[in-house]
Amino acid sequence: MKIVVIGATGTVGKAVVAALEGRHQVLRVGHHQGDDQVDITSAESVRALFERVGQVDAIVVTSGELYFGPLGETTPEQFRKGIDSKLMGQVNVALIGQHYLRRGGSITLTSGIVADEPIAQGFNATTVNAAVEGFARAVAVDAWGAFRINVVSPTLLTESQEAYGPFFPGFVSQPADTVAQAYVRSVEGPQTGRIYPVF
Amino acid sequence: MKIVVIGATGTVGKAVVAALEGRHQVLRVGHHQGDDQVDITSAESVRALFERVGQVDAIVVTSGELYFGPLGETTPEQFRKGIDSKLMGQVNVALIGQHYLRRGGSITLTSGIVADEPIAQGFNATTVNAAVEGFARAVAVDAWGAFRINVVSPTLLTESQEAYGPFFPGFVSQPADTVAQAYVRSVEGPQTGRIYPVF
Repeated sequence: MKIVVIGATGTVGKAVVAALEGRHQVLRVGHHQGDDQVDITSAESVRALFERVGQVDAIVVTSGELYFGPLGETTPEQFRKGIDSKLMGQVNVALIGQHYLRRGGSITLTSGIVADEPIAQGFNATTVNAAVEGFARAVAVDAWGAFRINVVSPTLLTESQEAYGPFFPGFVSQPADTVAQAYVRSVEGPQTGRIYPVF
Repeated sequence: MKIVVIGATGTVGKAVVAALEGRHQVLRVGHHQGDDQVDITSAESVRALFERVGQVDAIVVTSGELYFGPLGETTPEQFRKGIDSKLMGQVNVALIGQHYLRRGGSITLTSGIVADEPIAQGFNATTVNAAVEGFARAVAVDAWGAFRINVVSPTLLTESQEAYGPFFPGFVSQPADTVAQAYVRSVEGPQTGRIYPVF
């Protein structure tokens, strides 16, 4: 398979590439690094990427920023950061990328445990992750027979435990290479409309 | 209680006002009609509304547009319609309105059955409604002890059966005055972080 991994230079992305590249042709796409670059918040940048890449068998996104901050001080403008990046960024990739997917191909997006388990100051993350999951569940219905779409919802990464652990009290972390296996299941397996929790 | 109902001139909004106005001071806010007007897609318009309205005990939103269309023809720009209106519109009201809520007050937002049950061409609605529900579940955690926040998720309205029934095959409709009771439960009851399905 020819697989484009957007966010390939991040912690999860690197593990996904490592899990896939032995058996597949993997194009590593980053924001500033990788084999190619894209700004997923820009539909134009996503369109240009797929024009360069051409037809693929699978699209994986492990990219997208969120906003964290105190509820009483958060403005709508700050909240938009996560909407424009992790939500609309992944929607941009899916809506544009569908036209470059070979029949029967797949799209795999990324949400996160905070969709189900709110953390302090994480309301933007819960909103965005729940939205990404809703998007995939509904797109899977309309895309029936054309392409598959799933979401991986990782818990806190073991690699991020030191930096973010205090925001996830009592959450059990998982290493990126374990998380990566859920992406493999989505890309190589038969299912669609699934949320794969890795927690 | 002093209650501001945004979307008060719509089918659900009218029923909510009717269910509340006997016991409360209800301010009916519409886009072009009502006691006052607001464009919820504009944070500035929402700020100006609350500056005029002042402190309230409850905020209810029954407003917000969605995009419906074929997956293969939908552009990111079209998809943004629902994000900017029913998602960011309600987020704008909540993030700004929290500063005008009396301690112990409540915010009640609106999602819809399509959050749980995707319909054809309804992927924008599933995304947005799931996002609104995630927002409320997470904000309820951070707002603990300050204000309550819930979401009402109506099915197809009986009043909309003729216009939209074909898009909801096998969905059992509910009349707006039944849906309105879920808003009453949110405003006058003690719960927070709840999704009230009316289906």
